[in-house]
Amino acid sequence: MTTDHDAARKRALLLDQKDPLAAFRHQFVVADPGMIYLEGNSLGRLPRNVSSRVTRAVETEWGADLIRGWNGGWWDSPTRIGEKIGTLLGAGPGQVVVCDQTSINLFKLASAALDLRPQRPRIVTDTLNFPSDLYILQGLVRLLGNRHEIVRIGSSDGEISPDLAALEAALDESVALVTLSHVTFKSGYLYDMQMITELAHRCGALVLWDLSHSAGAVPIGLDACNADFGIGCTYKYLNGGPGAPAFLYVNRRLHEQAIAPIWGWWGESQPFTFGLDYRPAAGVHRFLTGTAPMLSTSALEAALSPIMEAGMERVREKSTALTQYAIELYDARLAPLGLALGSPRDPNRRGSHVSLRHPEGYRISRALIEEMSVIPDYREPDNIRMGFAPLYVSFLDVWECIDRLQHVITEKRFEKYPVQRLTVT
Amino acid sequence: MTTDHDAARKRALLLDQKDPLAAFRHQFVVADPGMIYLEGNSLGRLPRNVSSRVTRAVETEWGADLIRGWNGGWWDSPTRIGEKIGTLLGAGPGQVVVCDQTSINLFKLASAALDLRPQRPRIVTDTLNFPSDLYILQGLVRLLGNRHEIVRIGSSDGEISPDLAALEAALDESVALVTLSHVTFKSGYLYDMQMITELAHRCGALVLWDLSHSAGAVPIGLDACNADFGIGCTYKYLNGGPGAPAFLYVNRRLHEQAIAPIWGWWGESQPFTFGLDYRPAAGVHRFLTGTAPMLSTSALEAALSPIMEAGMERVREKSTALTQYAIELYDARLAPLGLALGSPRDPNRRGSHVSLRHPEGYRISRALIEEMSVIPDYREPDNIRMGFAPLYVSFLDVWECIDRLQHVITEKRFEKYPVQRLTVT
Repeated sequence: MTTDHDAARKRALLLDQKDPLAAFRHQFVVADPGMIYLEGNSLGRLPRNVSSRVTRAVETEWGADLIRGWNGGWWDSPTRIGEKIGTLLGAGPGQVVVCDQTSINLFKLASAALDLRPQRPRIVTDTLNFPSDLYILQGLVRLLGNRHEIVRIGSSDGEISPDLAALEAALDESVALVTLSHVTFKSGYLYDMQMITELAHRCGALVLWDLSHSAGAVPIGLDACNADFGIGCTYKYLNGGPGAPAFLYVNRRLHEQAIAPIWGWWGESQPFTFGLDYRPAAGVHRFLTGTAPMLSTSALEAALSPIMEAGMERVREKSTALTQYAIELYDARLAPLGLALGSPRDPNRRGSHVSLRHPEGYRISRALIEEMSVIPDYREPDNIRMGFAPLYVSFLDVWECIDRLQHVITEKRFEKYPVQRLTVT
Repeated sequence: MTTDHDAARKRALLLDQKDPLAAFRHQFVVADPGMIYLEGNSLGRLPRNVSSRVTRAVETEWGADLIRGWNGGWWDSPTRIGEKIGTLLGAGPGQVVVCDQTSINLFKLASAALDLRPQRPRIVTDTLNFPSDLYILQGLVRLLGNRHEIVRIGSSDGEISPDLAALEAALDESVALVTLSHVTFKSGYLYDMQMITELAHRCGALVLWDLSHSAGAVPIGLDACNADFGIGCTYKYLNGGPGAPAFLYVNRRLHEQAIAPIWGWWGESQPFTFGLDYRPAAGVHRFLTGTAPMLSTSALEAALSPIMEAGMERVREKSTALTQYAIELYDARLAPLGLALGSPRDPNRRGSHVSLRHPEGYRISRALIEEMSVIPDYREPDNIRMGFAPLYVSFLDVWECIDRLQHVITEKRFEKYPVQRLTVT
């Protein structure tokens, strides 16, 4: 190792010393301190306060309180936790609830949007969107009798940034709904929510944002941007746990008009009178469906503590510093080795992960995991995706990740792994 | 107390001594042994093995394994647990998965059924069905453009048993789907699955059974009856925990034709290639949607152990004995006090709960809970519902429940409670 190497590493340590969020790492369980975990954009680490909360939900609320648990905080939890998440999304009270899964919530709100614009046949989205979002739209179009057309901006899945000119050109009076991932899952491109929402509204379309990769990573101003609908998962930067319930947002000005497509009893106005004909609950509550999974929901509520304490401004500041630092190190050490940057250089257009692309991306990821104790994830066809969750990823983690990645490539340590793909990462 | 009273109580103790399932009570947490819990038909008790399983899911699988938990058993859990539940439903392998909530699963399968019978405009159900099921159908009909008509057999919500003649008369070639609760939520009426399924098939209709109140309570022969679709929750007699994920069944003969309405990535054929166009997964898996809540799912899997060990034949035998005993005691002691039996007398047409009806049902329930440590539930307008979960309810529990109920009524102990309704029970 060279003196340059040591000096560079020292710089990472110095950045950590100055990091105002450094102490938040102690609010998370770090079972293997030698492991560099860069999948917080897929499954966030376990906050320390969660385990006791879940034990209480199991042993006290279920085991001892039994059915009375529903009056003891369970029943109101979709709303109560929705309010907490709302503060992270720039959503005022009464507009966010926690329920179901992201795909289900997209189905519900996309359906409501099309219903509000019955004369308009087009849905605009892009090829950077998470495929499940596209599938949901495709299924909805079929269900509604193929009366709608999905306009998908972008020509391939290899793009880093969307074609904003093409997006703008697609917006006219035939468009009912524009739906996009606020931060895209592969490249981490961050859409300008304000601008896109304004563009869409100018032609009378509604906008639905998938916030899965931005909630807890970047400040979001749903109300300030006058967004119509939002959905997202809670198991990435919100650290809610594997498969934790999702959220949905409906702007207050649409509360009286928006009609849910799935009329479950949790979205009914008086569920315990057991009337035989559905009357929608007021506001966003009509988008609830059935009994929510309370153990997973309890974990989520506790898990929100660290991110709410840190605040989104500080989180964003560190996130930008981490991704910027990673790109600097990439430029100096990895670009010459044939790795391409798969994320935007402009920090204002970048979320909290950085993708590096290489034809051997899959085998390189395997080598990082198996030999280097670095856990990125891999996304077809060539993306090594490194998520920098600001509450527990350090600058030294970033430095070590790039350093070990350089070793994997220069020493060709990936070549021993088979070319087959992971089924789940 | 009289000698008759003591003799009657001794008989209950004798029945418990002869009960082959008596020991199963020890597999459940009984935090307050003095409490008689009769809401196992709403939220089953906590099985003892669940807490350690959930702690492992939180601390080891999430906390330490992190993203690798998906390869360590999470990803396959909807199928793996579905197979276990399938054995309790009389469903052969590959036809049951665990996912989402009951109302969502009803939406998915009702939609698939209508799609399979595009020329038929009618859906037949009844007024005994759980209201959320009716709401889901109403929402679906609206979503599909009001092309369908819901035929609701029964004239009021005060009936104990359905009008089978009216049901049969409603079945003709205009009917796409017949959907009913196998055991109805208020009266506990148990439909003859074989007979109704045959009647429906004779006119070419499909049948979708809501098994929420029968799964884990009565033997179900989905395959033997040649049922088309089934759904149900897992937090009642399956003891899966508050809001535990639901299940769905699609008969194998429909696997290639049935089309899901909600196309999520978990129902896609190759979710990790991230293709932009949905291709349905094979078989019942196409009805999965998004990432399932793994803490609640882990609890459910462990919770199934006692019921699988007991076996549905023995469970049914004890269930019938418990409800029969309750009705005997009711006849002798409560019928003269103005309580009406709200459940079928024929044990072959009765699930595992018994409803007693009284104009003061709400206040009587309150008095039982507050003063007698008996926890029934109350269902508008006059049903005191007593669920007898065979794995942990004893004959002495039944005797005590009836005895204490008699005291509440003869001593008018309910009169001090306000007439207002519970919001959640």
